[in-house]
Amino acid sequence: MQNRQQPSPMPIHRYRPYLDQFRVDLPDRTWPTKRITTAPRWCAVDLRDGNQALIDPMSPERKRIMFDLLVQMGYKEIEVGFPSASQTDFDFVRSLIDEGAIPDDVTIQVLTQAREHLIARTYESIRGARQAIVHLYNSTSVLQRDVVFRTDRQGIIDIAVEGARLCKRYEETVPETTVYYEYSPESYTGTEVEFAAEVCNRVMEVFVPTAERNVIINLPATVEMATPNVYADSIEWMNRHLEHREHVILSLHPHNDRGTAIAAAELGYLAGADRIEGCLFGNGERTGNVDLVALGINLFTQGIDPQIDFSDLDRIRATAEHCNQLRVHERSPWAGDLVYTAFSGSHQDAIKKGFEAMAAEAERTGRPVEELEWAVPYLPVDPKDLGRSYEAVIRVNSQSGKGGVAYLLKNDHALDLPRKLQIEFSGVVQAKTDAEGGEVTSEEIWTAFQDEYLPHPDPSEKWGRFEVLRTRTSSELDGEVDLGVRLRIAEDVQDVTARGNGPIDAFLRVMGEQGFRISLYDYVEHALSAGGDAKAAAYVDLEVNGVRLWGVGIDADIATASLKAIVSSVNRAVRAEVEQLALA
Amino acid sequence: MQNRQQPSPMPIHRYRPYLDQFRVDLPDRTWPTKRITTAPRWCAVDLRDGNQALIDPMSPERKRIMFDLLVQMGYKEIEVGFPSASQTDFDFVRSLIDEGAIPDDVTIQVLTQAREHLIARTYESIRGARQAIVHLYNSTSVLQRDVVFRTDRQGIIDIAVEGARLCKRYEETVPETTVYYEYSPESYTGTEVEFAAEVCNRVMEVFVPTAERNVIINLPATVEMATPNVYADSIEWMNRHLEHREHVILSLHPHNDRGTAIAAAELGYLAGADRIEGCLFGNGERTGNVDLVALGINLFTQGIDPQIDFSDLDRIRATAEHCNQLRVHERSPWAGDLVYTAFSGSHQDAIKKGFEAMAAEAERTGRPVEELEWAVPYLPVDPKDLGRSYEAVIRVNSQSGKGGVAYLLKNDHALDLPRKLQIEFSGVVQAKTDAEGGEVTSEEIWTAFQDEYLPHPDPSEKWGRFEVLRTRTSSELDGEVDLGVRLRIAEDVQDVTARGNGPIDAFLRVMGEQGFRISLYDYVEHALSAGGDAKAAAYVDLEVNGVRLWGVGIDADIATASLKAIVSSVNRAVRAEVEQLALA
Repeated sequence: MQNRQQPSPMPIHRYRPYLDQFRVDLPDRTWPTKRITTAPRWCAVDLRDGNQALIDPMSPERKRIMFDLLVQMGYKEIEVGFPSASQTDFDFVRSLIDEGAIPDDVTIQVLTQAREHLIARTYESIRGARQAIVHLYNSTSVLQRDVVFRTDRQGIIDIAVEGARLCKRYEETVPETTVYYEYSPESYTGTEVEFAAEVCNRVMEVFVPTAERNVIINLPATVEMATPNVYADSIEWMNRHLEHREHVILSLHPHNDRGTAIAAAELGYLAGADRIEGCLFGNGERTGNVDLVALGINLFTQGIDPQIDFSDLDRIRATAEHCNQLRVHERSPWAGDLVYTAFSGSHQDAIKKGFEAMAAEAERTGRPVEELEWAVPYLPVDPKDLGRSYEAVIRVNSQSGKGGVAYLLKNDHALDLPRKLQIEFSGVVQAKTDAEGGEVTSEEIWTAFQDEYLPHPDPSEKWGRFEVLRTRTSSELDGEVDLGVRLRIAEDVQDVTARGNGPIDAFLRVMGEQGFRISLYDYVEHALSAGGDAKAAAYVDLEVNGVRLWGVGIDADIATASLKAIVSSVNRAVRAEVEQLALA
Repeated sequence: MQNRQQPSPMPIHRYRPYLDQFRVDLPDRTWPTKRITTAPRWCAVDLRDGNQALIDPMSPERKRIMFDLLVQMGYKEIEVGFPSASQTDFDFVRSLIDEGAIPDDVTIQVLTQAREHLIARTYESIRGARQAIVHLYNSTSVLQRDVVFRTDRQGIIDIAVEGARLCKRYEETVPETTVYYEYSPESYTGTEVEFAAEVCNRVMEVFVPTAERNVIINLPATVEMATPNVYADSIEWMNRHLEHREHVILSLHPHNDRGTAIAAAELGYLAGADRIEGCLFGNGERTGNVDLVALGINLFTQGIDPQIDFSDLDRIRATAEHCNQLRVHERSPWAGDLVYTAFSGSHQDAIKKGFEAMAAEAERTGRPVEELEWAVPYLPVDPKDLGRSYEAVIRVNSQSGKGGVAYLLKNDHALDLPRKLQIEFSGVVQAKTDAEGGEVTSEEIWTAFQDEYLPHPDPSEKWGRFEVLRTRTSSELDGEVDLGVRLRIAEDVQDVTARGNGPIDAFLRVMGEQGFRISLYDYVEHALSAGGDAKAAAYVDLEVNGVRLWGVGIDADIATASLKAIVSSVNRAVRAEVEQLALA
């Protein structure tokens, strides 16, 4: 069976193989036989490397939200900025210290180049902190030596050693702070390992690692340039050639240019590293830093405690999306909208049998199913352990033959449902088809959608416990909005008011006063193009009294549409509670 | 420096380490010392594994667009469906054959379970094809044996061997087709390697690989369950234990549950595989199949011909996004919006020096810069080789201190710019700040945005060569729209009409008749929430006479907004051409 592939027109002559430029000779490598048994030390660099790669960097408020999230999750080393490079980073580090926002067991880390005025400014930023890691770096790669610094190896060593000496000198200006050091030979993957080791060892002559004050040597894949086994070889080589190894914390900082940063981190950890720097969901320069969520949950699914709490992954994701203003992709490991969804009939069947086998085992052994070893085909983790749920999406064949539920809603009603709502609603349609059988027409799908999410088309028919009858907002442009709403509540009509940073925020307070515990996980809106009347559809993903439900609102006014969406979700929650009571 | 990490509440006791369940003893592994020097055989499974993981599977039209794209790119083996599982898949395979859409050097592949009625139907689907790969699979994993099939090893072997025999028997029903075979022990990563080898070898007793008719043995990481070196070990083990190895094409099919599918494919290829199955941009079940774009361009950047044409990556991406209705993430390897963007000043400086060094080298050697070896820091590939461009985004500090350009446009004008337009416009602002220096106010940014993209605020002022004065559309709901537009063209006013599948399509024809070569790369629209007047903003990414430019249109009517956006882009192209002429 002949291989018919043909040469492509790609200009391959412009690229020299990495292994022609850099070789690590390590025939006696040991990492492929090793096994991961404990979590590495983590360092979250979302507020520095992640933040610097955003088109719009985080505002101070967003930075603080990210910092608090990382602390809550359990990260103990957090790189909080590059204070000498930006006033906003400087101010943020100061605010953390001055407001006492750093727990005793959390160590902040600040990045600096090896230049005196930047180092001076860096120490100014950390004054008053209980402890801090000063992270010194300079570029060491062949390419940067040639085209950026135009210097030789000795010149690069001089920059690094002089930087380290300046750090030690300025350390005296912060006597109340315990300063630890991290050194990165930046662009390490473009550097000969022998030279990288030499620079690191020379820097350690200044920093002098001890049992009490370890030094972190961080080896960044500033640009990922080869398969991850090559990075692992280089880490094992460095592991053997760093002096004071027993007092060195060997740290990895993989970027994801080739899409193999997670593998590089894992194999590098096998190769002897102690610590990994990365960002939630792989934010960071270009293709991103290594994804700390994937690394942590990869450990969890192997029965290894990541020492990080991922039990409410949707909340973590919503917060990161808010801070970064970047969405997590539908297929992002462990966290994407589609990763616990089975579409194929044979997968669904196998998953169902897996659940049944676990239930039978629970019955047989008298143990709760949550305590049993997880063993369900096609689901490498129990989604519940991450606050998610498994969804079987049965394909609905419409008579048009053109596609499924989401397609019909979009095509016939201009509704572009968020993925998770598509999945939720497909369950509603599935329940209907299971009950009634056969194919489903577009009209039946639309009727099911209206019944589930929207007020009755006849305005005289009451739908649900709550209804928005009128809204008024006013704002003095001071970041607060006053909201007045006329609400139908069952048979009553009430006028209520609330303040918030926007109408949604204010309205969630209104509903809170009605006795609901509500958290907002997601909010999406778009215009309806059909008919040119430019109505808007709003979708909200809420947790109402512990239950996750979507709501949908349609209105010519965007703000009103969003309030209607909240009402839709709350009404569905009330209905579900009533149905539960009826069953009980 | 103490590690302060604490145990998490994650229920790790529910998960058994993979290596406690499956071990491959391979102390003499050779793959870590190997090096990739040629492209593997590729098999694109977008139309099967990719398609089955979409909430709305592709329509027949979209499937055909995807098939044609894969053929154009250079894929020679394409899995086109699971024809016995779905009428639409069956019809699609038939249409490819009946319409003569399959080039002579392309082999289609169809998947089937090992059951007689499905196999019969599969052969029906391929009748008349010149050649085809029949891809037979059954599940072999410990877990599926226990909970799904409730059978022992022999039962699984019987299913596989009987399936292979049935294939050989039904082969006689398609005498005009050369049939090749692929066998997959599905859920291979949950199967003991010894047993996987046994099943494969027993199946090959039926399929009998020869020099003329190789058999493909495909080893899927149906669920990715361990670090990629473990997969590589298992592949090297299988490579040594498959019979008829010289006539076997050893194929990989990695999924990405742990985020390491690209690494698993690369290390498995080092371990002796010949072939890789995957999808463009990593579409596929849950977290996806391995990303064929990343794998191919990873080879390219090592000077290895991927035998696939990636030179117009944006077009490939736009087509895949259209077919899958899933966006490629901003940080997707080689293809995301942000992967050739530098935000950090030190990165920009190093990149600039890299470009300068290459220009100097070109001057010194008298060779065109496009022929020189690529050597620019932080850019592992010349974006131009993929039809992309490098963008330096200078951060604009507004006086509000709250964020950059995109933030201000969103906050003050409710405009939510697509990433690539954000990057483009930041270049416009940068040119302005370079000229004028200092900080930029929100008003100045808005003025710059209007000057660049929008008609003059005073309607009596003419802006650009073209202006939309009136639009009318009519549709008989037959998939075609009639568009009538009154256009100002310089000083003239003309009424023009065109048909298309929508107003944008029709209007692009109108502009084509005005002498422009236009391709549409992206189209995004949203409602403006400010003031509740529910206007819409439309953004288009066009190539006009060879130049990529965004356009922006704002109107209460969504359709009109999109036409205005096209006009905005064309006017900018005209302006750029005029400026070029003026410089010449």
